[in-house]
Amino acid sequence: MTGVQQETGDDSRPTEPLDAERWRAVEARLRRDEHGLVAAVAQQWDTGEVLMLAWMDAEALRRTLETGRATYWSRSRQEHWVKGDTSGHVQRVRSVRLDCDGDAVLLAVDQVGAACHTGDRTCFDADLLLDLTPASDGDSA
Amino acid sequence: MTGVQQETGDDSRPTEPLDAERWRAVEARLRRDEHGLVAAVAQQWDTGEVLMLAWMDAEALRRTLETGRATYWSRSRQEHWVKGDTSGHVQRVRSVRLDCDGDAVLLAVDQVGAACHTGDRTCFDADLLLDLTPASDGDSA
Repeated sequence: MTGVQQETGDDSRPTEPLDAERWRAVEARLRRDEHGLVAAVAQQWDTGEVLMLAWMDAEALRRTLETGRATYWSRSRQEHWVKGDTSGHVQRVRSVRLDCDGDAVLLAVDQVGAACHTGDRTCFDADLLLDLTPASDGDSA
Repeated sequence: MTGVQQETGDDSRPTEPLDAERWRAVEARLRRDEHGLVAAVAQQWDTGEVLMLAWMDAEALRRTLETGRATYWSRSRQEHWVKGDTSGHVQRVRSVRLDCDGDAVLLAVDQVGAACHTGDRTCFDADLLLDLTPASDGDSA
């Protein structure tokens, strides 16, 4: 995807280093599960597409906040991964929000290319379980 | 209730009863965690707002697909809850999608009123951890 030109270059945004006190305040608000994880939803900042759901431990969140590159915890490989490091399909982070009970974060990102390892734009493209969208009401399909 | 009039009535959309075979096929694709849960992201169908993240066991998903009303599993109360049953802030489901690895669903919903129990429209409104949104396109303080 080439979309918005000024967003696709290697323009790593200047991020302020997280000072220790601020990070501790954030970390204290996390309500991690028994594996130390919170859910992380990545959403394309301009189109609103929900791209994927992944997991973060505190360190992944800290790195994400500090680098502006979406960094997750792989439950299967038990390691951190920076989205796009192998595929090139990086997620440049524009904002990170914590939900009301501290167990989920919402990342507004600029996704380069496909978010899904299958090559789909999003991880939710392939498997529609239910469609109640009115066919003749508003949308024409 | 408040909000968009034609959406607030009791216009439960006609949903086809889930036949057993179809449900088994869906259930077989779920990759539940050790508590039997998948993550469920609710997104407002027209604005794209990510409203909340909650959890579903297979039964919650089955009820959601069958009734068109978002139904979740409460990890704290250890029971099913139908969004809006106490608050009136129902979520009428327009579509449900399963992600590529089967551990998350994305619901496109029509949210009546606030999605968050705090009264905020979304559960992600209150706690902005990072904001790298360009303030004036390339120029920042």
